Amino acid sequence: MLEAEPGAVRLADMTWMEFARRVSEDDPIVFLPIGATEQHGPHLPLSTDVILPESIALRVAERLGGIVAPSLAYGYKSQPKTGGGNHFPGTLSLNAATLVALMRDIINELARHGVRRIVLFDGHMENQWFITEAADLALTDQRREGVTDLKIVKLGYWEFITPATEAILFPDGLISWALEHAAVMETSVMLHLRPDLVNETAIPDNPPAEFPLFDPYPFDLRPIPPDGVLSSAASASAEKGRAVVEQVVPDIAAALARHFECSPAGAEG
Amino acid sequence: MLEAEPGAVRLADMTWMEFARRVSEDDPIVFLPIGATEQHGPHLPLSTDVILPESIALRVAERLGGIVAPSLAYGYKSQPKTGGGNHFPGTLSLNAATLVALMRDIINELARHGVRRIVLFDGHMENQWFITEAADLALTDQRREGVTDLKIVKLGYWEFITPATEAILFPDGLISWALEHAAVMETSVMLHLRPDLVNETAIPDNPPAEFPLFDPYPFDLRPIPPDGVLSSAASASAEKGRAVVEQVVPDIAAALARHFECSPAGAEG
Amino acid sequence: MLEAEPGAVRLADMTWMEFARRVSEDDPIVFLPIGATEQHGPHLPLSTDVILPESIALRVAERLGGIVAPSLAYGYKSQPKTGGGNHFPGTLSLNAATLVALMRDIINELARHGVRRIVLFDGHMENQWFITEAADLALTDQRREGVTDLKIVKLGYWEFITPATEAILFPDGLISWALEHAAVMETSVMLHLRPDLVNETAIPDNPPAEFPLFDPYPFDLRPIPPDGVLSSAASASAEKGRAVVEQVVPDIAAALARHFECSPAGAEG
Amino acid sequence: MLEAEPGAVRLADMTWMEFARRVSEDDPIVFLPIGATEQHGPHLPLSTDVILPESIALRVAERLGGIVAPSLAYGYKSQPKTGGGNHFPGTLSLNAATLVALMRDIINELARHGVRRIVLFDGHMENQWFITEAADLALTDQRREGVTDLKIVKLGYWEFITPATEAILFPDGLISWALEHAAVMETSVMLHLRPDLVNETAIPDNPPAEFPLFDPYPFDLRPIPPDGVLSSAASASAEKGRAVVEQVVPDIAAALARHFECSPAGAEG
Amino acid sequence: MLEAEPGAVRLADMTWMEFARRVSEDDPIVFLPIGATEQHGPHLPLSTDVILPESIALRVAERLGGIVAPSLAYGYKSQPKTGGGNHFPGTLSLNAATLVALMRDIINELARHGVRRIVLFDGHMENQWFITEAADLALTDQRREGVTDLKIVKLGYWEFITPATEAILFPDGLISWALEHAAVMETSVMLHLRPDLVNETAIPDNPPAEFPLFDPYPFDLRPIPPDGVLSSAASASAEKGRAVVEQVVPDIAAALARHFECSPAGAEG
Amino acid sequence: MLEAEPGAVRLADMTWMEFARRVSEDDPIVFLPIGATEQHGPHLPLSTDVILPESIALRVAERLGGIVAPSLAYGYKSQPKTGGGNHFPGTLSLNAATLVALMRDIINELARHGVRRIVLFDGHMENQWFITEAADLALTDQRREGVTDLKIVKLGYWEFITPATEAILFPDGLISWALEHAAVMETSVMLHLRPDLVNETAIPDNPPAEFPLFDPYPFDLRPIPPDGVLSSAASASAEKGRAVVEQVVPDIAAALARHFECSPAGAEG
Repeated sequence: MLEAEPGAVRLADMTWMEFARRVSEDDPIVFLPIGATEQHGPHLPLSTDVILPESIALRVAERLGGIVAPSLAYGYKSQPKTGGGNHFPGTLSLNAATLVALMRDIINELARHGVRRIVLFDGHMENQWFITEAADLALTDQRREGVTDLKIVKLGYWEFITPATEAILFPDGLISWALEHAAVMETSVMLHLRPDLVNETAIPDNPPAEFPLFDPYPFDLRPIPPDGVLSSAASASAEKGRAVVEQVVPDIAAALARHFECSPAGAEG
Repeated sequence: MLEAEPGAVRLADMTWMEFARRVSEDDPIVFLPIGATEQHGPHLPLSTDVILPESIALRVAERLGGIVAPSLAYGYKSQPKTGGGNHFPGTLSLNAATLVALMRDIINELARHGVRRIVLFDGHMENQWFITEAADLALTDQRREGVTDLKIVKLGYWEFITPATEAILFPDGLISWALEHAAVMETSVMLHLRPDLVNETAIPDNPPAEFPLFDPYPFDLRPIPPDGVLSSAASASAEKGRAVVEQVVPDIAAALARHFECSPAGAEG
Repeated sequence: MLEAEPGAVRLADMTWMEFARRVSEDDPIVFLPIGATEQHGPHLPLSTDVILPESIALRVAERLGGIVAPSLAYGYKSQPKTGGGNHFPGTLSLNAATLVALMRDIINELARHGVRRIVLFDGHMENQWFITEAADLALTDQRREGVTDLKIVKLGYWEFITPATEAILFPDGLISWALEHAAVMETSVMLHLRPDLVNETAIPDNPPAEFPLFDPYPFDLRPIPPDGVLSSAASASAEKGRAVVEQVVPDIAAALARHFECSPAGAEG
Repeated sequence: MLEAEPGAVRLADMTWMEFARRVSEDDPIVFLPIGATEQHGPHLPLSTDVILPESIALRVAERLGGIVAPSLAYGYKSQPKTGGGNHFPGTLSLNAATLVALMRDIINELARHGVRRIVLFDGHMENQWFITEAADLALTDQRREGVTDLKIVKLGYWEFITPATEAILFPDGLISWALEHAAVMETSVMLHLRPDLVNETAIPDNPPAEFPLFDPYPFDLRPIPPDGVLSSAASASAEKGRAVVEQVVPDIAAALARHFECSPAGAEG
Repeated sequence: MLEAEPGAVRLADMTWMEFARRVSEDDPIVFLPIGATEQHGPHLPLSTDVILPESIALRVAERLGGIVAPSLAYGYKSQPKTGGGNHFPGTLSLNAATLVALMRDIINELARHGVRRIVLFDGHMENQWFITEAADLALTDQRREGVTDLKIVKLGYWEFITPATEAILFPDGLISWALEHAAVMETSVMLHLRPDLVNETAIPDNPPAEFPLFDPYPFDLRPIPPDGVLSSAASASAEKGRAVVEQVVPDIAAALARHFECSPAGAEG
Repeated sequence: MLEAEPGAVRLADMTWMEFARRVSEDDPIVFLPIGATEQHGPHLPLSTDVILPESIALRVAERLGGIVAPSLAYGYKSQPKTGGGNHFPGTLSLNAATLVALMRDIINELARHGVRRIVLFDGHMENQWFITEAADLALTDQRREGVTDLKIVKLGYWEFITPATEAILFPDGLISWALEHAAVMETSVMLHLRPDLVNETAIPDNPPAEFPLFDPYPFDLRPIPPDGVLSSAASASAEKGRAVVEQVVPDIAAALARHFECSPAGAEG
């Protein structure tokens, strides 16, 4: 299958007239990548959680004739068990109310211009429940505007990794997805998509972090690896990253096509 | 071990003088059970997610000389994959901002009166991230009041169920904790703690619900079981419920004792 | 008249199916008791302002075939002239915005499930104006949802005490309802309803507190009785408490029946 | 006693340099009149609740060397039992959150410029509890700014009317202060202070309004007098108005002088 | 043209019945003057930004049969380049959220009573964008109430000064409108309208302030004139003030008449 | 002067360790570009107001050893006189409260990690006053955290265009900066920086838009050019764009160097 030009899917690159035409003619799915500016160890950039969902969303959108809105680069507060924690320098997080308001406003604006199919495309586990709240509040807003046919999907791309891909990533078995922050999966996908931003000499080989069954605030720093990587990334590779992308992109596209009842561009390929 | 009278641990039952004395003399851990008013199938009451954390928190508090504040009976919006969903009648949920404000205010009030060790004791999965936000905001508030020694713990009691107890609950294997809403575990614990509120003739035997890998808003009602129970509760029993309670109570108490560096009341027993 | 089982009126005890049936068949009045966790002297528990409205609301609801939703255990900030003040340990109060949001959300949720008759049943004088605001905002919310037949009542049970009952409570004359915090009326009703929670040996015999005609912030602690009781509770008795309950319950039921145009269950008795 | 020029007390009339000098030299009490734009029957203007507290505050401030900040002309939502209700045209009310924010900001601004003694001078009963909230929140704000010596007073001028003045106003006895909206007291004081704004030919002679013991929302319009006056104003007179002003002004000044430990200007007269 | 009595246009002076009649019969334009309590040098009062828009709005309203609602006396935070800055004593400013909420509530209240033409009449440059936000949010509110014919105008009276009037004010040429805070224009108009509040002996003759091209926070106090006047006011005169008022009043009236399609009262003069 | 690699200045590209080192060693200025997703005529992309400030901020930051944080791609609501208006499809705007919260959170996060010099680098005129509010609120937040040495600058790059550059852009004279939306200046800079995103065949040659002196809400669409370009862009060229960039970049760098008392990297070149 021949992929379309990425430029054709970015809302940022369109004129308002192109956007207007697309919305009125195609009823396109609009994707909003929602990331974070968050520590990702000594080897990955602070924007890892933006690059991954944006890159994957672009590929999915191409297959579905969708549009990708500008990514949200700031997300919810990093937590020790899923991101190492908010105390790492450079981790710039939003209060929950801010993040919810931001997503809610954007959904409402898209709906105001006639968009009726929106995918909130998450790249940062900590964002999940605030995405839910934004979607719920925006649906209420739209209902009060008389809009009752808006459909929103919340989605974390990692949820679509199949057991087969998991076996490629972790031939010796996955310890836990919760510990995969800045570890094998994310490092591999970054090596595939943006090798220029990976410091390969600094890829850590940490043992899996061990956390208590509860969450203390302020954070107890003792169980958190000092470099912020929750398990070993040593076995990461661009090939593994390619395997992830090549599996999740069509699978997400197919799932969304079914949900929104549209046909992916590659369906006939 | 002889358990203390429940009455001795409920803040609601104390006079202000008793509370004042306890705080100044004992530096007690104060527990805030955080539940929900949420559908729990045709056999369990709408208050299931309040009864369970409150009952378990009381037992843990007794062991640690702690105090249990009045429970929060309204929680975050029920979601299909973890609670069946907000559309079931009787499910009375709060907006995220409301729930966060409520918990934040209570933490600040406890801290104002000198409490320095607080456990946010969750009984409803949907509450988790909003508890995190409330704890974070209250710590900021307290820091600005000059209080720097406040320690907060967020805890879901179900996280403490060990593999051994899991084996008792699910001799044929657990399908997924995510599907345990109103199913074997919750029904069993209710049969143990509050059999008067369980309609045993109505316990359902649903197959496991199957959800897509993403979350649609508005909810897609098709994969949601019509009675709201996400998998079979048929094998529930009071004995299983007792096993859960008798295992998690001491384990939670021990974990908190380590974290807060206090000794559980039963330690010397 | 034979009173119905309390269990039949508590929303918390119902399954969602029972609630759904009740709402669709009976158009029931739903009561929301709104209390406080507030000092009540050396003899009454911190939950006095929850117990009283909840207990009375349950009795009223039984007569009207109503439903009582889980009580709000945290209320607005205790004030010197009506509650002794917020500085007493154990008094855990909410900011106005939090309390308003909490009530507004619950009203909206009840309306979402089809409830059209709601009684905000107050047990704490300081809550009054925030109840008004919540009712007003929720009516606006519902109007924007297209719901125009929602009826809300705000009610303080103490407003229904008749001169005759007042004469029973205060044979020598009432000094002022404003000073009745933790005094004769509340102590008597607690002795009637929950004697197990009253420390009879500690019932104070304070002279009436004298406050200036204005309110200073921060509080001027000098006119506030050190135990928080604003006048003497020495003449309290369970009999007086019974007299209050037995008078206000039918009177509130009758007033609500007239307002909502339904017949109390005991009308034909 | 010779009263000072009103011009000398209005913050609005001062240059910033005069204000700066006054604050640094005199530590003046700053009064904030808090009113409403609310129906006051067929004979009194919509600004009655602004004129009364502003006029009285100016007189009190003159005696105490105080300063009167610009009045708040919009207040909380008019209620049937105290103001006839928010449905009367021209009644322009604020949401609670708006009114609280407005007062909180002004208190904080005064404190920022060094003011340490503030009187929130209410002219509209419905404002009372929101004034309390604003004062409480501003004290928290200031505490976090390191300001711990700010003193705030909340005051309704009508609370200071003595039994002797009451006897002048109501020779046949007061029915209820709650029914005095746009009735004898307010009409009399307006006749004394601003006769140009009173339509004497339209002064109503309504019987006392009779309300139920609860508050319905939406309002039940039946018990509300169609002209919005809750009892008869027929016996109002400028002389009665003068009696009120001449009594409450020195009494309020004296009470505040005691509270703030300053001497009223007329003390030595 | 004979101007009507100012008293006939002030909402504050009307009874609710007059207001009701006016709205139902005339569909009047309602003006909301939006000012500030802000330093205006050693010679002008803190209320200058309230007096000017209120006075001009009254004159415009008279010509259009409009109504002037009570002015907002507190505005957005004074900035160095347009007002000298928020640090000058007596400058009492609101947070943006407060100011927006205040205006939004008032617009919504006017609309609730049937007003459909509103002019937000600004007297303080710093208010501008917050007026925009309030208008936008209120239109959304009203749309959700089913009101779709509300028309709002935002207007700064100074925008209407023509080159001819500018030549009268500044025979040697205007340096910059941005520097006109408390300078020739405002001082002249105050000398015309309220000479009693101008301290003529203190009118400053400052050189034009010079600011950098950016805005530093906290303010850099060095480029700010110590008396707060951004350029010379020495050439101010009552005649110049009269020229401004006599030009802008009819011009604003004519512009609004065209926009709202009504005829100014003086049109036939 | 040899410019540094752009990659060295993007916070997004750094690991947390690089960021931590930079902050602790260099006390770098951190730039936050604040843009909009807003119509820019038939020839420029919706992201024009993001590309311009980000590109210029990167060049300024290189000269000052600064760091550029991820840009904000969504800004305040487009207005007719400065941006054509919010009704053009693809214009995705935030409510004021959302935008303020977003910037406030990011400033607070930078300050939390030790940054003390922040430039809020605006690319969209409508953002200006909300940037002011965010800076003011964040300074209050930081003061309450005990941070008193935070310095923030608000800056619009277009303010730095000198008369000499203006003469290059507009040899026949500038009509008004207010009409330069999507016109000569922005088109020229885009032709210089991102010619791939300019549709040169669609560059419009509109006459200058003429607006009334006030702002109507809802917008009056009649004076707004149907393609959203407020004046002619026909004379735009990459050379003009280069002239703008080559002038404003060193000028902004020099101004910031003076303000923050650091030396630009190219100073010694």
